Amino acid sequence: MTAQQNDPGLDPYLIISSDCHAGLPTEEYRPYLDSRFHRAFDDFLGERDARREEATRLGIRNDAFAAKWFHDHEEGLRGGWDTAQRLKELDGDGVAAEVVFPDADAVDSRTAAPFGVGLGLSGDQDPELGMAGAQAHNRWLADFVSEHPERHCGVALLPVTGEVGRVVAEIHRAKESGLGALMIPSMWVDKAPYHDRRYDPVWAAAAECAMPVVTHSGAAPRHEYGDHLGIYVSEVTWWPARPLWFLLWSGVFERHPGLRFGVAESGCWWLPNLLWFMDRLYLGAHGGKKLSPFAELKRPPHEYLDRQIFVCATNTKRRELAQRYEIGVDNILWGSDFPHPEGTWPDTRAWLTKTFHDIPVAETRRMLGLAAAEVFGFDTGALAPLARRIGPTPAELGQDDDQSAVEASWARSREVGRHWLTDHDFPTLGVTP
Amino acid sequence: MTAQQNDPGLDPYLIISSDCHAGLPTEEYRPYLDSRFHRAFDDFLGERDARREEATRLGIRNDAFAAKWFHDHEEGLRGGWDTAQRLKELDGDGVAAEVVFPDADAVDSRTAAPFGVGLGLSGDQDPELGMAGAQAHNRWLADFVSEHPERHCGVALLPVTGEVGRVVAEIHRAKESGLGALMIPSMWVDKAPYHDRRYDPVWAAAAECAMPVVTHSGAAPRHEYGDHLGIYVSEVTWWPARPLWFLLWSGVFERHPGLRFGVAESGCWWLPNLLWFMDRLYLGAHGGKKLSPFAELKRPPHEYLDRQIFVCATNTKRRELAQRYEIGVDNILWGSDFPHPEGTWPDTRAWLTKTFHDIPVAETRRMLGLAAAEVFGFDTGALAPLARRIGPTPAELGQDDDQSAVEASWARSREVGRHWLTDHDFPTLGVTP
Repeated sequence: MTAQQNDPGLDPYLIISSDCHAGLPTEEYRPYLDSRFHRAFDDFLGERDARREEATRLGIRNDAFAAKWFHDHEEGLRGGWDTAQRLKELDGDGVAAEVVFPDADAVDSRTAAPFGVGLGLSGDQDPELGMAGAQAHNRWLADFVSEHPERHCGVALLPVTGEVGRVVAEIHRAKESGLGALMIPSMWVDKAPYHDRRYDPVWAAAAECAMPVVTHSGAAPRHEYGDHLGIYVSEVTWWPARPLWFLLWSGVFERHPGLRFGVAESGCWWLPNLLWFMDRLYLGAHGGKKLSPFAELKRPPHEYLDRQIFVCATNTKRRELAQRYEIGVDNILWGSDFPHPEGTWPDTRAWLTKTFHDIPVAETRRMLGLAAAEVFGFDTGALAPLARRIGPTPAELGQDDDQSAVEASWARSREVGRHWLTDHDFPTLGVTP
Repeated sequence: MTAQQNDPGLDPYLIISSDCHAGLPTEEYRPYLDSRFHRAFDDFLGERDARREEATRLGIRNDAFAAKWFHDHEEGLRGGWDTAQRLKELDGDGVAAEVVFPDADAVDSRTAAPFGVGLGLSGDQDPELGMAGAQAHNRWLADFVSEHPERHCGVALLPVTGEVGRVVAEIHRAKESGLGALMIPSMWVDKAPYHDRRYDPVWAAAAECAMPVVTHSGAAPRHEYGDHLGIYVSEVTWWPARPLWFLLWSGVFERHPGLRFGVAESGCWWLPNLLWFMDRLYLGAHGGKKLSPFAELKRPPHEYLDRQIFVCATNTKRRELAQRYEIGVDNILWGSDFPHPEGTWPDTRAWLTKTFHDIPVAETRRMLGLAAAEVFGFDTGALAPLARRIGPTPAELGQDDDQSAVEASWARSREVGRHWLTDHDFPTLGVTP
């Protein structure tokens, strides 16, 4: 053992990306799809151009950008479905393990899962086609992650608004096949909202299987936006966050203490205000009244957050890191968003240096990997040798060997923390000069 | 002139509440309603109990609280529609002038405007009944404010999703009748979203009449909430804020530079993140690209905010005041919410002391009245003698005669301001010890 390995301050980081994407070129999903859906699949393939035009109209897609993106990254982008290429890309970024969401191609949707059940998974999907498409992707993904199971947590697609028995069965099937988490639609649309007790067997099965339930940004009521991209982007993170307060206030986290729920690629900047707002509401109602309107909760919202809720915060912004003592350092799971252009790949190392250079090393370790390992059940022991080989060191991220100055600069912010719980009037964010 | 009047640091505050409520006991709206709607009005009155039961079920209404509220405040609550009583209550609170929204009774809805066009005004309202109910309230309100026009800015109800010609006509009619602002539904529901060009004549008329357009919290998709009050409260402020980014990104503020738009009783805690998010989106897109997806905008979002957008922030929270340099001090308009129980009445003076004691006097003057005077066109000269008589002094709010220490405590926060525009990585909120 070298001296370096004995000093946790100098060890390379074990990096786990809580938000990556993989998916087959759409037509290649055919063998994974029950043959009775092949005709419907042909129809779906035929509508591809129309979907691309729709994305271009709203401004989500840009012809010139797309051409350059595919030209510049042709080889790396094959990592969206080719395991050997993928590991090469992850290694290059210093990422030891990853949580794998669908839709590798966010630019041209060439890897859309059948029937639109990828990131656009929606509550109003046709239940038959929805489950068929989800199972096709889930089967392929189980194969995909099986080659190096210690490095991937595959996220099964779960059309949760369908018939409960089938949904529960798919949870168990996905678990047995080697997948590790469940993505549900952000929007239930015309189906039952997630406070509905009809979903209790689903939450129970997810908890029993230790599969975190996650929403991911993508779905939104696009029919309301006209061709205004700014409107879409301004609220696309709200819709995946919305189930959080539906689950919380209806007592789902109280009834299912083993359930973990997360929101992916929606930032975490909105969480401090939400938590402050919900805590005040709950604690205020309990101030002097015998009868609470929140009888389904047994503790304040922040306790459920710290126990059961997390954010796959993807490429965390400096403003968000400044708010980490309100969010909870352990609730922030960094992600590279590989291989999406809005992520940090293939420049993750430089990006990490820019973003984390003045963040304490111990906290960086949590946000870059250890928190995700706990949530998604990665085996850090099994990953350790790889991390030592590919992970950047604190020094490579520009972090000081001597952490005393950087720790001191955050001391006031850490001490105030969630100011509404620590008897401080005002938040204290950012460093103290 | 006394020495006190010469020193702006010691003058009593000119307080304008940007969020108050007035409305007739519902049955008394009959004479203001076109007679052809009297039969429909009888039906509406007959559904009152059902509405109350609905509110009780969701937990918005509580029997025991309601009984105590009406018992304790019987006399003062008559100020919801009785001018003499109202002025007595405003004077008691130190409030010189007010912006008058509908629905005086937020506990039992006894003063609901006809056909549910009060705070619940919704885009999917029957257009005929909606306009009839709105006009009934608007006519009464014009009478109501006419007794002391310098003290009230009456907010006309505007069912904006109806036929554009009639909507524009109602704007001009309301203006001529003495009303000063326009409330539109927070939710268009199944009608055209507010980015639609069909509304351009409406925004033009509002600008021409110098009537700010406002949304107010209240409407929400309650059918999704079951009986979970926490869900309702957690997102009830999002729906009235939503039109802000629909108007902004579709270029409404660029095409109608005279239009003012505000969001009432929805807090202002959400505004810094939204502004940061929108500015980054706009400025990022303009960084290196010739073709912008935001061609309808000619300047970054914060410039529209500072020029045309405001928040009637009602009983501002300490956490919100800590963020005022990101929001913009001049964009925060305090309100008492008289006569609603969630507001500061009848203890406004004590509440102001608790909340503003360590906020600089000059900024307090803006947030408590001067900013609202500019937005809503109050005549501060006409109000000055009254303010000197009833307004609390800075000393009564616990504010130091010598402002140097308090100014210094906020200097760093003010200097950083909107950190994404001042080249600072992190926000700096709150006081520096």
